[in-house]
Amino acid sequence: MNANGSVGAVVAQTMRFDSPLVLTSGASLDDYSLVYETYGELNAQRDNAVLVCHALNASHHVAGHYSDRPRELGWWDNMVGPGKPVDTDRFFVIGVNNIGSCFGSTGPGSIDPRTGEPYGPDFPVVTVEDWVHAQARLADCLGIERFAAVMGGSLGGMQALAWAQLYPARVAHAVVIASAAKLTTQNIAFNEVARRAIINDPDFHGGRFYRHGVVPRRGLEVARMIGHITYLSDDAMAAKFGRNLRNEGYSFSFGVDFEIESYLRYQGEKFASYFDANTYLLITRALDYFDPARATGGRLDEALAPVTADFLVVSFTTDWRFAPARSREIVEALLSAKRHVSYAEIQAAHGHDAFLLADPQYHGIVRGYFERIARRIGRGS
Amino acid sequence: MNANGSVGAVVAQTMRFDSPLVLTSGASLDDYSLVYETYGELNAQRDNAVLVCHALNASHHVAGHYSDRPRELGWWDNMVGPGKPVDTDRFFVIGVNNIGSCFGSTGPGSIDPRTGEPYGPDFPVVTVEDWVHAQARLADCLGIERFAAVMGGSLGGMQALAWAQLYPARVAHAVVIASAAKLTTQNIAFNEVARRAIINDPDFHGGRFYRHGVVPRRGLEVARMIGHITYLSDDAMAAKFGRNLRNEGYSFSFGVDFEIESYLRYQGEKFASYFDANTYLLITRALDYFDPARATGGRLDEALAPVTADFLVVSFTTDWRFAPARSREIVEALLSAKRHVSYAEIQAAHGHDAFLLADPQYHGIVRGYFERIARRIGRGS
Repeated sequence: MNANGSVGAVVAQTMRFDSPLVLTSGASLDDYSLVYETYGELNAQRDNAVLVCHALNASHHVAGHYSDRPRELGWWDNMVGPGKPVDTDRFFVIGVNNIGSCFGSTGPGSIDPRTGEPYGPDFPVVTVEDWVHAQARLADCLGIERFAAVMGGSLGGMQALAWAQLYPARVAHAVVIASAAKLTTQNIAFNEVARRAIINDPDFHGGRFYRHGVVPRRGLEVARMIGHITYLSDDAMAAKFGRNLRNEGYSFSFGVDFEIESYLRYQGEKFASYFDANTYLLITRALDYFDPARATGGRLDEALAPVTADFLVVSFTTDWRFAPARSREIVEALLSAKRHVSYAEIQAAHGHDAFLLADPQYHGIVRGYFERIARRIGRGS
Repeated sequence: MNANGSVGAVVAQTMRFDSPLVLTSGASLDDYSLVYETYGELNAQRDNAVLVCHALNASHHVAGHYSDRPRELGWWDNMVGPGKPVDTDRFFVIGVNNIGSCFGSTGPGSIDPRTGEPYGPDFPVVTVEDWVHAQARLADCLGIERFAAVMGGSLGGMQALAWAQLYPARVAHAVVIASAAKLTTQNIAFNEVARRAIINDPDFHGGRFYRHGVVPRRGLEVARMIGHITYLSDDAMAAKFGRNLRNEGYSFSFGVDFEIESYLRYQGEKFASYFDANTYLLITRALDYFDPARATGGRLDEALAPVTADFLVVSFTTDWRFAPARSREIVEALLSAKRHVSYAEIQAAHGHDAFLLADPQYHGIVRGYFERIARRIGRGS
């Protein structure tokens, strides 16, 4: 165990798949790569693997750091590591980057073998279910028949839910945090505005901006600013920024007067410097489309009938993007389908972002749940 | 009284002011015009005048219609007219368009006499208080020393509050609906994103788009879409649109799949066809800046100490843009300052938009309040 509880230096790996992946849309990817990282050791029984699914702007880089960038910790480093809630001394943890992303797995910025140019808008629209099927192939290659747990927050939680539904025999536990069985109308509305901001940017060039050597920076900035407003609770934003001014008085201009304006612009500019615009469209569309109960006339309990996994569902009181009521819908459907489910609603001030923070109660619940899982592994059961 | 309760055909009038208006910013407007409409008759005692202040995208056209456009009713036609809650058989009602607007009063699209070109970005940033001072001059010209009531919803309510504070001797009653004594951090954040969308649009040309013969349509669309999300409650949006699709299945594209997407795009396009981008910046900034308690270290009751008017304050349960808690802050400050205030929190599903709708309980309360006022007018008191 590393003294500071970190998995330490990590190396991303790439798995290439040559057989076509048929997608929900009917399109298919002839070949594709998935970038992933692993932490801890797979045990002899191969039953201690945990898959961590990422949300909108994250990646396979869940924990630790790259040797040349020691300060850039993985996005869930407070959750995954030796002695941490998901303890890499006990579990073999996999972080995987989804197709359509811009962090290494095949996505719209990758070269389309049919044209020799980046896919851009020709990259197919992918779904949460497509991601799960692609991840299942990675699990095959890594020799993992059944995960001790599949977990994720937000969009990552949707993947955990889809795993339990689509591959019941391959998921012992699903951990669904700050998530929902489907987006609300308001969620879809915010996604649509963010997409319009990107598509409206003349530098988007219909998604073929790569060949113009530009990036739809302004659209991405606006999209990210909208996102940040919805990730934070009204109260958390008020507590952090209030109506604090950058300078003594009002500027009587449209520049930065309030601290919140400065914060949002900074977040927008940072995001636009590294995130791919086509990926943003794809991932928000995957969020919109996810709705496992669509095939059962809205009956989520019927949709989840195939599930055999035990569930841990966690929500945060001030999360208005994925409100506790949305988590309770999942819990109620699972109970109605007579599945085992633990549910925790965490008092937390930070809105949707809370799932990324190290709240002691929250982490204590996840830790306890994984300790229970750990007691069952390594016994060939 | 018109049979259908309408004020009928109306004509907008223009008042020109030649003496400079010194603004909060220190800038001044050398001369300016205000467009206004009146409904009903000013009585002999000149004590039955009601001023209606408008919010973000409205105007002086409060009630009735223009003879050549019989179907375009004023924005508060359900509130103002013969036999309506603000009864034009009893009251002389004035609707006035604020400076900085794009509906006739002097604004960024008007010709700057110094250059012979539209003001554009040279139009000074105006505040709620500036609007009130300009309106007070109009009242002078109309021979109204004291209003029976000054009323408004949202940003219009802020003007009513400012009137009561700045001109206590000239306001008998202030009616403040779906409003706030200041924006929250989240409100400011949404305004900032909307402004960035406009300013980022290459067709904005730093606010000088008039001379290029273009309009920053795409930025205005995004700004309006954000606005619409915040005007509706999450529940109202879910009830109205849910996850309803325009067609049978998903399109696997970034076109319109969901009804809510279609609605938002339509609203955005409609808005961009008539609203001025510089006006949008100015009005959102006036919202951001309004904070009467800023001069008293945050003590709203101290800021409102000059007030002598009686108040009616109304909020709506599902309004998350100007939540009931914000109205209660005004009520508590007024009570702490020992003023008379009636407060109603209306159970309504429609979010911020509820203030424009004809909810019977809401209209009943306003009607009752104005009937009380009516009993005191016309007696020279």
